[in-house]
Amino acid sequence: MARTPRPRRGGTRIEQDTMGTMEVPAAALYGAQTARAVENFPISGLRPHPAFVDATVRVKLAAARVNAKLGLLPRDKARAIEAAAREVLAGQWRDQFVVDVYQAGAGTSHHMNVNEVLANRACELLGGRRGDRALVDPNDHVNMAQSTNDVIPTAIRLAALELAPGVLEAVSDLAATFERKAGEWDGLVKSGRTHLMDATPVRLGQEVSGWAAALRHAGRRVADALPELAALGIGGTAVGTGLNADRRYRALICKELDRLTGVPFVPAGNTFYAMQSLAPFAALSGALRVLALELLRIGGDVRLLGSGPNTGLGELRLPPVQPGSSIMPGKVNPSMAEMLAMVSYQAIGLDAAIAAATSGGQLELNVMMPLVAFDLCHLLTILANAVAAFDRRCARGLEADPERLRHYADRTVSLATALAPRLGYAAAAEIVKESVRSGRSIVDVAVEKGGLAPSEARRLLDPARLTVPGRA
Amino acid sequence: MARTPRPRRGGTRIEQDTMGTMEVPAAALYGAQTARAVENFPISGLRPHPAFVDATVRVKLAAARVNAKLGLLPRDKARAIEAAAREVLAGQWRDQFVVDVYQAGAGTSHHMNVNEVLANRACELLGGRRGDRALVDPNDHVNMAQSTNDVIPTAIRLAALELAPGVLEAVSDLAATFERKAGEWDGLVKSGRTHLMDATPVRLGQEVSGWAAALRHAGRRVADALPELAALGIGGTAVGTGLNADRRYRALICKELDRLTGVPFVPAGNTFYAMQSLAPFAALSGALRVLALELLRIGGDVRLLGSGPNTGLGELRLPPVQPGSSIMPGKVNPSMAEMLAMVSYQAIGLDAAIAAATSGGQLELNVMMPLVAFDLCHLLTILANAVAAFDRRCARGLEADPERLRHYADRTVSLATALAPRLGYAAAAEIVKESVRSGRSIVDVAVEKGGLAPSEARRLLDPARLTVPGRA
Amino acid sequence: MARTPRPRRGGTRIEQDTMGTMEVPAAALYGAQTARAVENFPISGLRPHPAFVDATVRVKLAAARVNAKLGLLPRDKARAIEAAAREVLAGQWRDQFVVDVYQAGAGTSHHMNVNEVLANRACELLGGRRGDRALVDPNDHVNMAQSTNDVIPTAIRLAALELAPGVLEAVSDLAATFERKAGEWDGLVKSGRTHLMDATPVRLGQEVSGWAAALRHAGRRVADALPELAALGIGGTAVGTGLNADRRYRALICKELDRLTGVPFVPAGNTFYAMQSLAPFAALSGALRVLALELLRIGGDVRLLGSGPNTGLGELRLPPVQPGSSIMPGKVNPSMAEMLAMVSYQAIGLDAAIAAATSGGQLELNVMMPLVAFDLCHLLTILANAVAAFDRRCARGLEADPERLRHYADRTVSLATALAPRLGYAAAAEIVKESVRSGRSIVDVAVEKGGLAPSEARRLLDPARLTVPGRA
Amino acid sequence: MARTPRPRRGGTRIEQDTMGTMEVPAAALYGAQTARAVENFPISGLRPHPAFVDATVRVKLAAARVNAKLGLLPRDKARAIEAAAREVLAGQWRDQFVVDVYQAGAGTSHHMNVNEVLANRACELLGGRRGDRALVDPNDHVNMAQSTNDVIPTAIRLAALELAPGVLEAVSDLAATFERKAGEWDGLVKSGRTHLMDATPVRLGQEVSGWAAALRHAGRRVADALPELAALGIGGTAVGTGLNADRRYRALICKELDRLTGVPFVPAGNTFYAMQSLAPFAALSGALRVLALELLRIGGDVRLLGSGPNTGLGELRLPPVQPGSSIMPGKVNPSMAEMLAMVSYQAIGLDAAIAAATSGGQLELNVMMPLVAFDLCHLLTILANAVAAFDRRCARGLEADPERLRHYADRTVSLATALAPRLGYAAAAEIVKESVRSGRSIVDVAVEKGGLAPSEARRLLDPARLTVPGRA
Repeated sequence: MARTPRPRRGGTRIEQDTMGTMEVPAAALYGAQTARAVENFPISGLRPHPAFVDATVRVKLAAARVNAKLGLLPRDKARAIEAAAREVLAGQWRDQFVVDVYQAGAGTSHHMNVNEVLANRACELLGGRRGDRALVDPNDHVNMAQSTNDVIPTAIRLAALELAPGVLEAVSDLAATFERKAGEWDGLVKSGRTHLMDATPVRLGQEVSGWAAALRHAGRRVADALPELAALGIGGTAVGTGLNADRRYRALICKELDRLTGVPFVPAGNTFYAMQSLAPFAALSGALRVLALELLRIGGDVRLLGSGPNTGLGELRLPPVQPGSSIMPGKVNPSMAEMLAMVSYQAIGLDAAIAAATSGGQLELNVMMPLVAFDLCHLLTILANAVAAFDRRCARGLEADPERLRHYADRTVSLATALAPRLGYAAAAEIVKESVRSGRSIVDVAVEKGGLAPSEARRLLDPARLTVPGRA
Repeated sequence: MARTPRPRRGGTRIEQDTMGTMEVPAAALYGAQTARAVENFPISGLRPHPAFVDATVRVKLAAARVNAKLGLLPRDKARAIEAAAREVLAGQWRDQFVVDVYQAGAGTSHHMNVNEVLANRACELLGGRRGDRALVDPNDHVNMAQSTNDVIPTAIRLAALELAPGVLEAVSDLAATFERKAGEWDGLVKSGRTHLMDATPVRLGQEVSGWAAALRHAGRRVADALPELAALGIGGTAVGTGLNADRRYRALICKELDRLTGVPFVPAGNTFYAMQSLAPFAALSGALRVLALELLRIGGDVRLLGSGPNTGLGELRLPPVQPGSSIMPGKVNPSMAEMLAMVSYQAIGLDAAIAAATSGGQLELNVMMPLVAFDLCHLLTILANAVAAFDRRCARGLEADPERLRHYADRTVSLATALAPRLGYAAAAEIVKESVRSGRSIVDVAVEKGGLAPSEARRLLDPARLTVPGRA
Repeated sequence: MARTPRPRRGGTRIEQDTMGTMEVPAAALYGAQTARAVENFPISGLRPHPAFVDATVRVKLAAARVNAKLGLLPRDKARAIEAAAREVLAGQWRDQFVVDVYQAGAGTSHHMNVNEVLANRACELLGGRRGDRALVDPNDHVNMAQSTNDVIPTAIRLAALELAPGVLEAVSDLAATFERKAGEWDGLVKSGRTHLMDATPVRLGQEVSGWAAALRHAGRRVADALPELAALGIGGTAVGTGLNADRRYRALICKELDRLTGVPFVPAGNTFYAMQSLAPFAALSGALRVLALELLRIGGDVRLLGSGPNTGLGELRLPPVQPGSSIMPGKVNPSMAEMLAMVSYQAIGLDAAIAAATSGGQLELNVMMPLVAFDLCHLLTILANAVAAFDRRCARGLEADPERLRHYADRTVSLATALAPRLGYAAAAEIVKESVRSGRSIVDVAVEKGGLAPSEARRLLDPARLTVPGRA
Repeated sequence: MARTPRPRRGGTRIEQDTMGTMEVPAAALYGAQTARAVENFPISGLRPHPAFVDATVRVKLAAARVNAKLGLLPRDKARAIEAAAREVLAGQWRDQFVVDVYQAGAGTSHHMNVNEVLANRACELLGGRRGDRALVDPNDHVNMAQSTNDVIPTAIRLAALELAPGVLEAVSDLAATFERKAGEWDGLVKSGRTHLMDATPVRLGQEVSGWAAALRHAGRRVADALPELAALGIGGTAVGTGLNADRRYRALICKELDRLTGVPFVPAGNTFYAMQSLAPFAALSGALRVLALELLRIGGDVRLLGSGPNTGLGELRLPPVQPGSSIMPGKVNPSMAEMLAMVSYQAIGLDAAIAAATSGGQLELNVMMPLVAFDLCHLLTILANAVAAFDRRCARGLEADPERLRHYADRTVSLATALAPRLGYAAAAEIVKESVRSGRSIVDVAVEKGGLAPSEARRLLDPARLTVPGRA
């Protein structure tokens, strides 16, 4: 983890806020409130997610343009703020966002960090010096018509909508991989297994088509959680009433953000709800959790089917990506699937944290936003990357072992299920018991005990025949 | 909790399954497998949720009709099975569903309980005696073309779709109550509170409109989780391939279930997924969890605003529903809101259990279905009832205390926010500090330190004026 | 689920509380407050856990004895209350505890239910009629020196301490079963599997000894969570100060409860903490959760090792307890292990609910106690029963398949690990690769490529030799 | 988040592992397997927790010493490995531990990263060049007698035991702060509040003593979870059998680790359990979760009691640490308590992830260790820092407002509770109702309706008198 930086060499300067003065490193673009927050919150060393910094900066940029358009913010100040914001978005000054993830409620610390960095950089761009609040003030100019309480929920929405497509794409790619595999493997008959016990035959392609369908549905649920994030409470300012923002501001800033991001943002139908509630994030997180549950299951199946080489099921072969053991030579493990499982477990945990935080709103505001911002961005990031890596380095390279598949298909005792419509469930069960007891094949026992001709038994009990609908 | 019944007086009879014979109470409609399950699973005493019994029975009824239509099940047997099913749906024999909630994987025990009860009752209706498997067999006739693996996931879907409208209706009613209150209280100005600290004014109606919006969104998310439940894996039989079911069976039984329930059921696009995955239930549960998180928050706000009578905020008065204390006379508590909170906490727990179980699928099947069936039905039931009770016995009777609201509206130090666009953030902060230090009103200090005329200060700082968008 | 009973036939009578009068069934022992609660909370139909009823009644009994001893409660009233309590503890009047699990905060409803039943029954025992509050009053007499706020946390402690030994015993029994099996199976060499891939050999007895150790530790953690439950806040009354209780009351009632239960109860060191905090229950629940996590893991291993009969690992054979499938004849599933898994998943959920409720305390009290009471009792009950059933019907009957074990032991490619100290990790890895590529045994390849004499290779690579510490 | 570094300028060199060759930056100390892992796992950019790096390195150092002592590792190689390890522990080469948190199961990637860095640095110290595996080999020398499967669980134990004292100390300090405050505030009478409603009086010191007791208990539970972590599976090597480790190795390395850390490490009683199970970490995490639940509650109470300044309860004043709002001038928020809440919510999530991962063990190993390592270290770190920061910047500076406390103490309607033993519960309830209805004080109404003399009423109802045990 990155630790909060020590003041750099090169001296310090004095910055001021309404509580008094603070010394900040001379090279710092941030000001007094950021410096206080760094002192107050030496908790984890974790800094804001890059997408969350971008999102907050985009809100600032949009607000400056709108306030200028409305004649409230002098054009030159607005232009300077916008230029500063564009520098950050282009990758500059990224080390200036220094407040710990675990910080003041609502994210005032991170928010003021952004306000201060943009104000100070704008001062410079206007030929002034850092800290000249008369030239560009973090509160009066950069934060004009804004409050942490409308900016931060808006910024989380922007960040989530920036990151979510990465998840959708990775999930879709993985589904496509499995669909391709399902096609390739459509002729490979194997034993079904339910309760991990011998079940009736199934084709490997059918089994894998189920994984693909699961992923398509999981992706769809994530996609369905996104549209409501495009309704923004921005303009509600401190408590949703819009005090200190021009009446035209809400509509204009949504359009400006649309222009900046390509997302069709609209003003929230109810600004009070938009500020009170973090439910839209919990809903997205919940959809991601369901995805993670499916990934756990499918990844677990891949590990199970790939178990071996000599002591497991060995129906699938996973591409080796690295040596598997520091002590057991030649060992190759399902490392990508295991990484996917760990990311999925983490998703369960991050979702639990987001949900708990969502319950913690009180009256006009839920102040637990900094946690939700970080956890949601982290969740979107690791899911996107994990699914993509699993796809590229595991799923696409999966190979079936037709011999093993066939071996089990021929031996599952549930072949006898096909006899039930003809002989009755009870008689078929007797055949299975005898087969297990004696080790003889279901076909042989069926001939002996079921009164079937050998050829008929073989036909009735042909595994491939049993993988399509219909009665014997 | 209801305990599993002891064998009743009146003797026993012998029933048989593929493992041998079992003694069951003579009066029992169930058979040997149910008796085994009762012995195997003396865990909780909790029986299946009524909606889940209904749902399983409906699948049986539909299957009998379809199999008869296809000429596979003799008409008289089919009619007898249907008649037995209709008796159960009408409320008879409900004490015959005796298997513990915690039972065999996939729900085979519950499933066979239903098969046995219907088979035995059908025997009786055909003039035979209970246990005459030649007349009506639980496996060969009642369960024809079915497997636990397609019946149980289908039954959970039916049960969830039967219970969910109760949640939607209750949530909609509660939202409507808050919308009505929001209208009534639109003129009541109060202090906003963010971080539980004085914030800028807001109208009580605005605050409560946020609750209504939250509930509308929460209800919408639950509703959005329902359509995918109408896609049924029924007909996939043991592993999704449809073995032992007629090719026309899947489409026909969906239509039959549509006729029975009014839900437009369709065959699942992928029967393998429908059997492997419990994700659709986790998704519904997740949507219910988000609802619960909102209920925790809103209920918490109601408790906070109603705190008192003399030592709390006292902005709202809750209708008294019962004495609040066994020792403190005259105490009245927010009992309905507290019940709502407990149901919401339980929702978090039930959802966690459902999610964990959802991750536990392996290959062709997730066998954790009995748990998911019970928890999901329980969750839907308690949320519907809790929200409705809270609405009727608390929300509708809420009363505002205009005096207390006004009292706080006049005193919040954040009135000074309205001065910031004019005096600057820093100067306004000085006014607040002086007001807190001296105990004088913001208006008075603003006149003295901000250079405002008294009338102008009063106008600028009129709380009602500050509850609409705009700059001073 | 049991539904709350409708008023029975036989008429009604009028009962009274401080809010007015209520009609109750003539046969009911409960009074007006219970009747209000039944009306207020038609939520789930779930009634209080029997152990929680017992516990609450024991507190009442103890309080009556102490108050009489202190001369505050007339002897005859005290004796009547005690007699009524003893009737309930002996199994009478159990249908009179009718308040839904989801009810008023703190459990006032359940508490008054108990107070009313005991008061009314005491009236009868004194020759009076139900509802004669002058004779025995639910508040003034039965509840003398008590408050919901000290009674309910105390009752949860009593209930938990009554139920916990059942869990400890079941876990200890299961551990003993595995220890016995570990002894029996100490000579059976098998392939280890890590990451589900071939690993170095291990003896089945060693593997199973790990399960036993896990259970011993899990049981110990549960046991460690119990002692703090013996510190009771009883006597703190409404807010912990002890108002309205005699100064000697706290010590005396703890002794009385000790006498009634055999648990060495002591007055809590801090009564305010005892009332504010539900943490001791969350701690116990947390210990039970860790047990559940181990059960999930061990049960999962049992299912994995028992998979088959023909398409799985088949190293263990599980005793069949019931037919496994409604459609696949002769199928036998690991039903007991699956039930154990579902109980374990439920434990995760119940624990999550308890934890969430524990966070919900405010100031002098955490009112979420009714939920915690139910969930904790339910959790203890199902874990005790599930572990015991799994032990008796699965673990004790487990059988090893020596042939399958040996088969895999001979074939694991990680035999080559033993060559690493001699040949180096890299050379040993080459041998593994060649073995996998060619299908030849590790011994054969080691002879050819590793320059070992055949007899030496066989000796070095003897699986049994590799299950003890040491270097080749 | 720190991103994985791009290869630095200055060219590359070739490193080799059993899968082939890899290019690594010339300046890198790590080798081929690390390079593969960096390629395989571009997931989060999060690197291993520093305490986990230290712990892994300490195991390597101890193993080298023991293997040398046993004559298995040449002295010069051992000394070089130890010297390299000491450099890392002293803070050098920290940027060489580059594998993502989300990586290969069991942590083989991180483990080999450490093996490779130490091997290469040892090569240099011996005058060789990086990558000279003949001189010092990551597997054969650094990893001698070790496996990921015993090293990583051991390293997590070391790391947890290094970090846990920070939590214990912070919690103890905070408890001491509250104990001090409880003493200072012992004379301040206030209204108790249960259900957030007027309850009987309590002294602020009593209330706060409850917080202190809660923290003492929470700390004790964390401490109780530590001793079992001192039992190490190290020496079990690949599957717990100890293959490839000298028989004396286990005892010796535990002593060596004791010497290095001061923790009395002992060999685990059962090495198979030590490898199969992550339960000890889930147990510690569970204890930390209970701490977090208490912190949520206590922090919530601080926020509630400190609400205001003018629109809340205002019984406590929190030290201001930074400006609270970007828009509302002069606003001061309970920022430290909010940070504490967010850390607590995160604790709930991290614990959920750890628990879920703990359930994921299969047979000889639970491969989910990298996740558990990171989450547990992170959890311990943020809890220690958050509690300490809250203590220093909030709790120690809390001030009571005696006037507000007195104001509410005099007005709580539950003063009437003191009348119940004398007048009966019902009559006292009437007095409360009349007081609420009329707005007159409880004393006045008690005089009028309860037949008490004014002086007696005042004496009986004196709030201070009601904060000690006893009956009126």
